[in-house]
This record gives sequence, structure tokens and C-alpha cells, in this order.
Amino acid sequence: MTNSFSPKLAISSSSGTAGRLPNMSTALSIRSRSHTYDVVTYPDLAAVVARFEKEPNAFFFADQRVVELYPEAFKTIRGTPRLVSTPTSESTKSYEALTPIFVELFKAGLKKGSQMIIIGGGIAQDMGAFIASNVYRGIPFTLVPTTLLAQSDSCIGGKNSLNVAGYKNMLGSIVPPREVSLVFDVLKTLSDQDILSGLGEIIKLYYLDGRGETERNRIPRSPEELRKNGALARELVTNALEIKKKYVETDEFDTGIRNFLNFGHTFGHAFESATKYRIPHGIAVTLGMCAAAHFSEKLGMLPAGASKTLSHEFLSLCGGYEKELKAMNPDDVLAAMKLDKKNIGQQIVFILTRGAGSVEKTPLDAESKTGPWLREWLALL
Amino acid sequence: MTNSFSPKLAISSSSGTAGRLPNMSTALSIRSRSHTYDVVTYPDLAAVVARFEKEPNAFFFADQRVVELYPEAFKTIRGTPRLVSTPTSESTKSYEALTPIFVELFKAGLKKGSQMIIIGGGIAQDMGAFIASNVYRGIPFTLVPTTLLAQSDSCIGGKNSLNVAGYKNMLGSIVPPREVSLVFDVLKTLSDQDILSGLGEIIKLYYLDGRGETERNRIPRSPEELRKNGALARELVTNALEIKKKYVETDEFDTGIRNFLNFGHTFGHAFESATKYRIPHGIAVTLGMCAAAHFSEKLGMLPAGASKTLSHEFLSLCGGYEKELKAMNPDDVLAAMKLDKKNIGQQIVFILTRGAGSVEKTPLDAESKTGPWLREWLALL
Repeated sequence: MTNSFSPKLAISSSSGTAGRLPNMSTALSIRSRSHTYDVVTYPDLAAVVARFEKEPNAFFFADQRVVELYPEAFKTIRGTPRLVSTPTSESTKSYEALTPIFVELFKAGLKKGSQMIIIGGGIAQDMGAFIASNVYRGIPFTLVPTTLLAQSDSCIGGKNSLNVAGYKNMLGSIVPPREVSLVFDVLKTLSDQDILSGLGEIIKLYYLDGRGETERNRIPRSPEELRKNGALARELVTNALEIKKKYVETDEFDTGIRNFLNFGHTFGHAFESATKYRIPHGIAVTLGMCAAAHFSEKLGMLPAGASKTLSHEFLSLCGGYEKELKAMNPDDVLAAMKLDKKNIGQQIVFILTRGAGSVEKTPLDAESKTGPWLREWLALL
Repeated sequence: MTNSFSPKLAISSSSGTAGRLPNMSTALSIRSRSHTYDVVTYPDLAAVVARFEKEPNAFFFADQRVVELYPEAFKTIRGTPRLVSTPTSESTKSYEALTPIFVELFKAGLKKGSQMIIIGGGIAQDMGAFIASNVYRGIPFTLVPTTLLAQSDSCIGGKNSLNVAGYKNMLGSIVPPREVSLVFDVLKTLSDQDILSGLGEIIKLYYLDGRGETERNRIPRSPEELRKNGALARELVTNALEIKKKYVETDEFDTGIRNFLNFGHTFGHAFESATKYRIPHGIAVTLGMCAAAHFSEKLGMLPAGASKTLSHEFLSLCGGYEKELKAMNPDDVLAAMKLDKKNIGQQIVFILTRGAGSVEKTPLDAESKTGPWLREWLALL
């Protein structure tokens, strides 16, 4: 090991994808600039914990609620320093809230050669992935999404984000995981709104992919149906990830086509923040798609009446949350939109649509267009 | 702009390397995984500020001391929201201390399409590059190093690091700048120890590159000589960067050969922390190279007497700081080494040497080897 320019010295970072068990199967693989990672299906959460527990450099970072709901899965690591658990909310998903977690991980023995196994929904993922990508200038991490939303959407593509000083989602990076581990047993303890939230991002992806009403109607309208039918959950999640994969592989760093995944999101983010996060993310996005359909029709991008039909379909997945919006002052929603980080000057940037499979980036003036059309749409709800 | 998988949409992030002025020249270029960036020489600091001030999306982040020392250079942006200045110390270089800076930048109007121009020494660079690589999931940044150490070493390679909760350098990432802008007028206001600190990393790079004593003696022993001789400063900085370039291009993510740049650093970091940062970084590294030579001779890697000769040479660049070490309790130095994040169990990992141009990664037991040899070396000082 002398000072010659050969890559021999490469310190082995023990691989998280070695030692496949017979009860695991690869659903798909995602190419990223730094490496390709697999989305792997396991029979249940206990199998994932058992698998990574064997790797001595693995530290588990989990949503406290998941640990409480699945005590059997965590029984061998609970109470040991290898498991760091956290409550999750908009306020724990903040830059400031991570300091004590860093300290806990260092005290537990997290080192340069360690890896993290991140178990939970979108917030636990954001926190864990931000930690893993900044500690020791980045250590490998595996995502084990436990909500339908995290499974069908945020677990691939490598994005993480944090709030700072009350500014929402301003910090983060795009750093892909080493593996995504999928388990469907955890869906049975999700609330109705958590399932609807996941179905919202799934129907968005189906729509972006140009799938027609017949196929979109395979998406159940009853959360209970999804809880009982593991095969259906698997089919929906895999389809959603296959669609999202095309966007994140083509445009990993979100400078082009990946923007289209924000269909429904300019509205959705504003609905979330204006209602102080009473509307779950995926449901806010579904409501946002209704609003986008209305705006698209206003611009002649959709034929007369089309937005009514689409809204009827999308609202069937909103669990009555449109009532939250009807109770809002439209000015508060508009004010939230004006803070969107994608805005260009006075223009608010929307992704609008000409029909399933066809969306367009469309900036609209906040005062002359967005405000009046938003008021109009809210009155129609 | 419809939903097809073409990269057409690519939102232009206005380039920082466009619009070269006749008074700029490219000293070298560095290849990184994401892009290639230039190290560009400007006549003075005012020319750098003038150049980037013309780019409306550029925000300046500068060490307060540099702004105070060079009021003329900053006169057009001082007092405007485009210039955010900060005091710099080990305590400002912390995760916790950045929150108010994020807020200041957001209030100043920092957006997704903005870029940062980071002006200062290693600490300002660490803070600024951490901010730029995490805000909006990463915006482009230019480094304008104003200390000899930052110019000859840390400005290339893309590393940034922060302390968190009193744990030193635990967070960070490897994200390359868009450009490195060099100016030599700023060296004239550096203190003796800041210049010696830079010369320490330069002699380390010369040694790693196998340059013999004659060439190493081109490095001035008098800080005043460097302050007065801009051409010499430019020659030394360019040579040092040319050497470092080979390591960071071959092993950008520091998993192999780039480790050798840590020659003198296991000792150096311990000397810094055990003396509560009274010894400047580059001087601590130079003292670390003396210790490394002693350890190398103990292991028979250097012939008898060689470490004495090397130490004599290196100590001529230490400005008397070896006295700080002589006053130390060796146990405190050893205790600091035991906390090194590169340690493997009870083994402390050193880069030792068989002579100029030949170094080796050598783990040594903390108690049976490192402790006794360290005591021996300190007694010889």
C-alpha cells in the first residue's frame, strides 16, 4: 500500500446487498449517477430487521410508532444502542431537531464504516437520509418505507428534505439509498387517511403515465380493501415505482422531466401549509390535481367539462378532505402559493395537463390568473 | 414542453464560468464526478467581487474579517442583502450556528436558481460549502480562498465539514465548487502563523510528491518573504494544487489513495484538539509529520537518523509551536487520538513514510505502540 495511483487501497465498505435470503425478491432496480440500487421485497418487517441485524455495522433508525406497533419485529434490537427511534412530525423533520439524534448515534458507536437502516414513512426517511448523507461525509443507507406513500413514491429517487427555522423543505440533497426494502405486512396498521394519501400519489403516477380510466379504476376507493389485499398493494406499489423510475433515471437531479412529478404539487403544498398540515400530503396532491384540471380547462388545454369528470374521479380518493378547503379563506391559500420556492418572480409555476399522459410546465401570474381561478375552483368544490 | 422523456426541459442554471475577463487566467482544471471546474487566477479580490457582482443570481458569503480588511473590494455590495458576512471560529463552524445564516440568506432572497460566492479561509469555506450543498438540495458555489492554507489545499477536492454538538468535523459532504477563484493580494494581511500554516500543507504535498530537499527548500522559512513575493506565492500554490489534483481526481470520494493526503494528520488533529486549537492546522500537521517520521523510524521504515533530519527541516516551519506540545501531558494527546474517527477498534490509523514520495497506511495499537512512542517523541522535542 504505497503511494502509487492505483485504486487498490479502496477500503471495503461492507455491502448491504450481499447475502440474499431465499425469501427476498428484487422488484426493480434504479440507476443513479453513483450506483444502481435494488427495490427488494421481503415477506415482512421482521425479515428485514433479521437480515440487517446480521451486519455488525448496521444501525437502525426507526419511527417510534412503527417500533411500538411491531414489537416482535424489533425484539432483538429494542433497548440496544443499535436502534435509535424517533417520533415523527413536521417539527421533528427539522434541521434543529437532528442535533440530539446525531449525538445519540455517535454515542451508540456510529462510525465511518457504518450503515443506516431507516424504517418509517416519509418523515423518518427524510430525517434518516439527511443524517446518513451528511454524517462522516455520507454513509450508506437502506430505506424500509412503512407507509403506502413512502413505498409507492418517496423511497426511490434519493431526495431528502428538512425544514429549517420554520422554512419548509428548504434543505436537503439527492443521495440514493443502497437498497429499498419493501414489506407489505405494515400496511395493515395504516389509518384510512394514510392509505388514501398513498393512493393519491399512485393515481398521479398512473395519470402521468397515460393510463386510462379503466386502469386507474383498479385503484381501490376503500382503504380496507387495500389493507386486506396484499397482492393488490404489491401490484400498485410496483406499478407506481416502475413509472417513477423512468423520471428519476432520466433526470436524477430534477432539472427537467422530473419536474412533472410535481403535477398537483404547487396546489397540494399550499393546501397542506394553509391548513397547517391537517390534509395528508397525498390527499392534498389529489385535491391539487382537481385544481390543476380546472386551471387547464380555463386555459383551453382540456375540453369543456373534462375537469369536472377528472375531479369526480380524483375526489373519490380524497376521503372528504375537500371540506377542509371549502372552509378556507382563498387568500390564505394564495398567500401560501406565493411562497413556493419554484416561483419565478410574480409567476407561480404549475404543472397543468392536456389529458392523461400529457402535462406541461405553465407559469401563471399570481394576481391576474392564479387568485381568481383559485377562488372560482374553491367555490365549485 | 410535454411529458416526453427528452432532456429538453433542462432549466438553465446560469453558468458561473461564462464571460471571462481578459485579466483572468486558468491555472488548472479539476475533474470530478459531476463536472470539471477551473482554478482561475484574478489580479485581486476587487476583480473577483466585480466579476460575480454582475451575475444577478450571485450571493456573497464572506468572512467578516476579510470584508473589514478589504473595504474597497466590497464597497459595492457591503450593506446590501447580497453580502452575508460571518465571524469565523471553531464554534461558528458548527451545525447549530448555521440556522441564523440560512434565515439571513432566505430573507436576502436566495432561491433555487441562485449561486453562492464564498470568500474566506477554511472555516468560511466549510460553512459556505455546507450551506450551498444543502440548500434547495444544492446550488452552485464558487470558492475564493483568502488564506494560504485554503488556497494551496482545501479549495479543491470538494470536502466540507462541520462540528456538531461539540463533536469535531463529523458532518459534511464532498460536493465540488463551480469555480475556484485565486487572488494573491490578500496574502499580505495574513499573520505569520497563518502563512506558516499554509506552508505546512504545501511542504506535506511536496513531500508526498517525492520532491527532494532542494525543491522543498524553495519554500520560504520567513513569512515576510512570502508576503512580499506574489510570484513565489503563486508558484507554491499552483504546485501544491497540481499535486493534490492527482489525489482528488483519482479518488474523489476518499476511499483509497486520497487517504494519503492525511500524512501528519492523525497526529496533527490530536495536537490541535489537545491544545484547544492554539496550534494552527497546517503547523499541527507539520509537527505531525515530525512525529510520523519518528514512528516510521521506530518501525524500521526509515533508516536510523532519518527522522532527526526530517524533523529539523519540518520544525523550521513550525514557528516555535513545538513548545505548546512540550508543555502538554502526553496522556491528553493520546486521549485525543483515541477519538479519531478513522480508528479501527483499538488501532489508531497513521500514514507513515519510507521517504519522500512513499507513504503507507499503518494501523498501530493505541496502548502498546502509540502511547509509548508518542511519549518518547515528545521528550525528544
